[in-house]
Amino acid sequence: MESKKLLEEDMSTPKYESMNGGFPDDDDELLDIATEIAPETASTTSAGSNQPFLAWFRRTRLDASGMSQDDISLQPFLNSCESSTNILDSSEETMLEFGQYDDFHTIDWVRDISRDRLRHKQISRKSKESCWDLIKGTHDAWSGWLCVLLVGMAAGLFAGIVDIGASWMSDLKEGICPEAFWLNKEQCCWGSNDTTFDDRSCSQWLTWSQLFGIHTENAGTYILDYIIYVLWAMSFSVIAVFLVRTLAPYACGSGIPEIKTILSGFIIRGYLGKWTLIIKSVTMMLAVSAGLSLGKEGPLVHVACCIGNFFSYLFPKYGRNEAKKREILSAASAAGVSVAFGAPIGGVLFSLEEVSYYFPLKTMWRSFFCALVAAFILRSINPFGNSHLVKFYVEYNTPWFFFELLPFILLGVFGGLYGAFFNKFNLKWCRFRKKTRMGLFPIAEVMIVTFVTALLAFPNPYTRENTSILIQRLFKDCGPVDDSDLCDYNATYAPNLNNRRNPYGEAGTGVQNAMWQLFLALILKGILTIFTFGMKVPAGLFIPSMAVGAIAGRLIGTGVEQLAFNFPDWILFDEACAGGQRCVTPGLYAMVGAAAALGGVTRMTVSLVVIMFELTGGLQYIIPIMAAVMTSKWVGDAFGKEGIYDAHIHLNGYPFLDAKEEFKHTTIAADIMRPRRGDPPLVVIEQDNMTVEELETLLQEEDYNGFPVVVSKETQLLVGFVLRRDLSHALDEARKAQDGVVSNSRVYFTTHVPGPLDVGPKPLKLKKMLDQSPFTITDQTPMEVVIDMFRKLGLRQCLVTHKGRLLGIATRKDVRKHIATLANQDPDSVQFH
Amino acid sequence: MESKKLLEEDMSTPKYESMNGGFPDDDDELLDIATEIAPETASTTSAGSNQPFLAWFRRTRLDASGMSQDDISLQPFLNSCESSTNILDSSEETMLEFGQYDDFHTIDWVRDISRDRLRHKQISRKSKESCWDLIKGTHDAWSGWLCVLLVGMAAGLFAGIVDIGASWMSDLKEGICPEAFWLNKEQCCWGSNDTTFDDRSCSQWLTWSQLFGIHTENAGTYILDYIIYVLWAMSFSVIAVFLVRTLAPYACGSGIPEIKTILSGFIIRGYLGKWTLIIKSVTMMLAVSAGLSLGKEGPLVHVACCIGNFFSYLFPKYGRNEAKKREILSAASAAGVSVAFGAPIGGVLFSLEEVSYYFPLKTMWRSFFCALVAAFILRSINPFGNSHLVKFYVEYNTPWFFFELLPFILLGVFGGLYGAFFNKFNLKWCRFRKKTRMGLFPIAEVMIVTFVTALLAFPNPYTRENTSILIQRLFKDCGPVDDSDLCDYNATYAPNLNNRRNPYGEAGTGVQNAMWQLFLALILKGILTIFTFGMKVPAGLFIPSMAVGAIAGRLIGTGVEQLAFNFPDWILFDEACAGGQRCVTPGLYAMVGAAAALGGVTRMTVSLVVIMFELTGGLQYIIPIMAAVMTSKWVGDAFGKEGIYDAHIHLNGYPFLDAKEEFKHTTIAADIMRPRRGDPPLVVIEQDNMTVEELETLLQEEDYNGFPVVVSKETQLLVGFVLRRDLSHALDEARKAQDGVVSNSRVYFTTHVPGPLDVGPKPLKLKKMLDQSPFTITDQTPMEVVIDMFRKLGLRQCLVTHKGRLLGIATRKDVRKHIATLANQDPDSVQFH
Repeated sequence: MESKKLLEEDMSTPKYESMNGGFPDDDDELLDIATEIAPETASTTSAGSNQPFLAWFRRTRLDASGMSQDDISLQPFLNSCESSTNILDSSEETMLEFGQYDDFHTIDWVRDISRDRLRHKQISRKSKESCWDLIKGTHDAWSGWLCVLLVGMAAGLFAGIVDIGASWMSDLKEGICPEAFWLNKEQCCWGSNDTTFDDRSCSQWLTWSQLFGIHTENAGTYILDYIIYVLWAMSFSVIAVFLVRTLAPYACGSGIPEIKTILSGFIIRGYLGKWTLIIKSVTMMLAVSAGLSLGKEGPLVHVACCIGNFFSYLFPKYGRNEAKKREILSAASAAGVSVAFGAPIGGVLFSLEEVSYYFPLKTMWRSFFCALVAAFILRSINPFGNSHLVKFYVEYNTPWFFFELLPFILLGVFGGLYGAFFNKFNLKWCRFRKKTRMGLFPIAEVMIVTFVTALLAFPNPYTRENTSILIQRLFKDCGPVDDSDLCDYNATYAPNLNNRRNPYGEAGTGVQNAMWQLFLALILKGILTIFTFGMKVPAGLFIPSMAVGAIAGRLIGTGVEQLAFNFPDWILFDEACAGGQRCVTPGLYAMVGAAAALGGVTRMTVSLVVIMFELTGGLQYIIPIMAAVMTSKWVGDAFGKEGIYDAHIHLNGYPFLDAKEEFKHTTIAADIMRPRRGDPPLVVIEQDNMTVEELETLLQEEDYNGFPVVVSKETQLLVGFVLRRDLSHALDEARKAQDGVVSNSRVYFTTHVPGPLDVGPKPLKLKKMLDQSPFTITDQTPMEVVIDMFRKLGLRQCLVTHKGRLLGIATRKDVRKHIATLANQDPDSVQFH
Repeated sequence: MESKKLLEEDMSTPKYESMNGGFPDDDDELLDIATEIAPETASTTSAGSNQPFLAWFRRTRLDASGMSQDDISLQPFLNSCESSTNILDSSEETMLEFGQYDDFHTIDWVRDISRDRLRHKQISRKSKESCWDLIKGTHDAWSGWLCVLLVGMAAGLFAGIVDIGASWMSDLKEGICPEAFWLNKEQCCWGSNDTTFDDRSCSQWLTWSQLFGIHTENAGTYILDYIIYVLWAMSFSVIAVFLVRTLAPYACGSGIPEIKTILSGFIIRGYLGKWTLIIKSVTMMLAVSAGLSLGKEGPLVHVACCIGNFFSYLFPKYGRNEAKKREILSAASAAGVSVAFGAPIGGVLFSLEEVSYYFPLKTMWRSFFCALVAAFILRSINPFGNSHLVKFYVEYNTPWFFFELLPFILLGVFGGLYGAFFNKFNLKWCRFRKKTRMGLFPIAEVMIVTFVTALLAFPNPYTRENTSILIQRLFKDCGPVDDSDLCDYNATYAPNLNNRRNPYGEAGTGVQNAMWQLFLALILKGILTIFTFGMKVPAGLFIPSMAVGAIAGRLIGTGVEQLAFNFPDWILFDEACAGGQRCVTPGLYAMVGAAAALGGVTRMTVSLVVIMFELTGGLQYIIPIMAAVMTSKWVGDAFGKEGIYDAHIHLNGYPFLDAKEEFKHTTIAADIMRPRRGDPPLVVIEQDNMTVEELETLLQEEDYNGFPVVVSKETQLLVGFVLRRDLSHALDEARKAQDGVVSNSRVYFTTHVPGPLDVGPKPLKLKKMLDQSPFTITDQTPMEVVIDMFRKLGLRQCLVTHKGRLLGIATRKDVRKHIATLANQDPDSVQFH
């Protein structure tokens, strides 16, 4: 591939300095990743069609200077198309000033947090000096709250826009409101003053065939509507994939695996950029509207994080400190779930359980605030016109009975099995996409999947409509006036319901039909999602997983209901259903099933239950949900411990040290340490015995991120650690500025430098840049303790000693490689530092 | 004090070996603490009245062998009364076998967790061998879930019993149900078939004066009822304090500060024992029924933790591993809050935010399960007969308006101020109690406070009744049929309410009266709680704090309501209250006020909001509550950052490294390290250059917990760390068993031991007991990093090096002393290791 070659040349320039733990960056690896994350940009040049677009795009990006470092970093991909490098130079300065980390590198939590402490101390010292400084200090103290307030408001706003847009475009596939084309079907029908809106068409709303003047329903109109449906779906998805491909390659997928990785302390420049934000918001609406088997919940979390990133640059405290910025991002991801499900508490717990890495209590409180503000704003926008935050909010009035735990646990088993099945095949398919040439044709892939989806979805009323409407329908209990298929019972007219139809009895033909259609929908959704998740469009997993579970739940729930109706005296039903009383709520089964399936796929626990609880608002339904989620997790774990997000993190080789996994081997630090037995010894600097020239040679020959400083090579007594960047900078400066510093000037990392009595050129003192407290472990330290230290303290590297003498170094990458080896994975699949 | 002397002698026996980080235990400190925690036992002998009781008590305790190590540990207190020491000997063996930590010592998380990992590895290896081992392995894997299930069920059960008992005994103060004396007032009146129960007396229920045949209401009956009320209150509280004092001194107080400390890795034997459980449950009912200004929520958490401790001994995985046991205790504390407030999610968050120290996600999921099971069991018991878990569950039907944020924030300010006021004076009072002779007369103290409380509470209907009923009344919205004083408006009869009274209008005399009485109740509760919290009876803070806030809220709420009624066109009310529409819900104000006051006192954040949310069940009311809680926290923090629990932890000198506080100084590890400048050098062991005799002398002369092992005293190159207990044990064993080991045998901590060619007695190899991976830091490490390491890794001690050579040691106690010094506290107030 020519483009690949170009990319390679561009990325292997020495501009990509290594910043990692003392070992060389493998630029080849970087390249691999770059193409993996966005293979379509790599293949862009070969297509060679979007040059003007890109030029405009780049201009726009450069106009937005200052805060645009995150955008500029799409550089590698852009350069692959037009090999200009001058932008990279300017962006590097920005990086130095701001982030201080290179792209695709791990941040150093300890350093960043102590930098922030230093900054904080300076501000509190200064704030006593003058009134202005006091104001600045106060602003600094409040800036975290202000920032999350802004993030929450913007997240609510974006979610509202996306909800409204997606709902309008979804309905566009079926018809239009000719009097006010900007209204969706529901709003259009409100206008028509039909008191009850029951999803059948109202006079105001016209299907496309009706718009063309054909008002009789026959095969012709059906086919016409069918074709238009497919065409709309195709065009939505093609626009979406085209936008993603050309303008914001990072806007694809759900984003949660990457956000987890970023929050764990990894830099992916541009992933949270402004362009990703805009393009993802737009394409999310398009992808949902195309009727693909995907949801907007994951992408909403990504969008919220982009918003968080954007606003963090307004506050240097967060914008210039990667570790602190992650506090804002944690809050933003809580806000994302909050607006996706109308569940602020669930959002915070999701951020805590699933997404965040470093989540102190202060962050939790702010996240809660952020999530609440976002929910409040969204409720003010009221996108669904029902004063609730989500389409599928429900309230049940009937209790559940103890015997129902049996079917609920059964649903849990189904959820676990489905999760294991889905994860396995989705991973296989994604691996296949990565390894074969298929990954090079994302547009074609999306077109084919959309075509198949639309073709199969239209005939079935339950798949034709938007998935969130389907879920709403399945969750809902049958009311007395509900005359949809799902509630078509051979009803008994009960006098206690004011002689209205009591929706409980033998299943009518409507219910029987619905069961068949739902069963087909289950299979269709279950299979299509495997192929959809991973395509180059924004694609969330929550909604399709929940839909699969909800369908299964409704099926089982209706089954149990019919059993209870027909055999009310059976021992199981005896107490609850005696006398033909209604004792089963199929809608609750749908909800439990949804939770179970989602649990099976993602392996979420507390946050999932809380989200579901916030959807129903009834404390009493927690127990069924919890029973199902627990079962589903156990069953799923039996087939493989990883949730889909962690699996995708591994698939992509992101550097993520999972806090949930337990390390079960008996290895020690010596097993991961470098240099290994037989390797050349560790490169070290002697504290008072090296000349400027020697160090310069060292810097040229070795590309480690930093060097341990020792008393002498013989003793190997550790003095400290010096970063490559600092050292190189200092030597350059000294050469330029300090008089008398020549090639054979001695460099001293000690406090006492020999005085002028000594013969020789003027010495160079570099003690200031020495990190005198590098983390050390002994070579006998058990691996689980090493992992704990890396994880809990956020280390990048750790020096290894033996009997007090320096022996080697262990980086986070070494740890991850070791874990991969022990898990029988290819250690070379571990990339990034 | 004679008894103090006795206690001292008993506790300074060498049985209390030092296990702490290399420095001697100060037994005097231990003594101080022992008397502080339970001064009443120290004063027991001087009273000399309860000898038979104690003898019986001790017999009972010793009967329950096996799991009773936690009980036996009340020894120091018991021994102060009867100086028999033989029990202590047997208990020490148990300690060695089980807990391996001494009383009032800090546990070593790293060691305990790696012990558990080892155990786990052994089991998984074994489980492949035979079917039986597989079953054992499975049991082990499930035991965590089983244990929390049992804990949840028992916690629900205990809470139910306590609720029913407390409610019955509270009503006993006023009267009795002669036909069925075991019913409380509410249940009694149900039986009487009065359709609406409106708290006035029903025919079935008789006040004491009625029981004595006086059915006219006059001054005489009033005084009679008054006297009986006071007498009941006095007798309840005296029984309570007597039981606590004699049978379970640890059953006093709220227990949350101690549980926080225990969960952070501290051993207080007996604090979670069976006797504490039983006595605390009983005395909690008594104390609540006595009408004292206290609640049962904190004590319920303590009781739940006792239950957790009890069940953990059924599973050796938890019972024999202090670090693992704390996972069960975390879950138990979540269950405690869950049953106290009917808030399972709030309980988990409370455990996470306020109580727990080490809270991995697995624990969170289990805590949630535990909390849910407890809530479910309690709901099945249905102690309040309202299908809700708490007396003060509410549902509002009216929304809140934006302008109301102003009074809500005002309530937040009130809550913050009240919290600061309460914390300050309660601490002063507790310090006064500790320092003066007052602490020696706990029974008298309780009697006086109860007498004053009952005397002042009876005349005011809002203080006479149980505090949780008061809160329920204040939270409740005025309904159309509510004719209590609080709802006595000059009402408008609205046709849209079926001509029922619309409880909105100008305040009637009833409301005006109620306002005055509430205001007096506010002052009374506010002041009495200061003196009540800290007495030697079980005493929770939640209910009285909430009551104070709720009263203030109701007052302000009614004020705003009247304003809105009288000036509906005022700009603030304009939109919401136009046309005289009802726009203010005083009950909501009470709830917001309760949250604010509780927030001010405890400084809880997320968990408090979630608990309140679970009480109302309406997502929309989160925002007012959050606004108030945020304000209250900020205002409170301005007067002092500590919540009441942390303040009590500090007051008692418990070893707690707070994870919330930020360290703001620029000290380094060298500042806390020992030996200090001028001290004799650190005691070390040379790896291959010391004889058995030398080591024995060392063990005799120094009482450090452990000794660093170095290559040689000259080089000070660190090899490892050896625990005193291990070393002493090994030397004893060697003397006994190994032939040829004599006083001048060399001890080798190295792999290679000189062969038989060397002259001299047989060497002793001790490499096995060497911890080859002690944690080390350099002397230049910033203090915040040191604190982080101690906190996150759960260290007890850390060795300090300089340029690779061992320099000193830093223990957790050193860190805490340093923090205390920098906070201008007396470093000697830091006790325990």
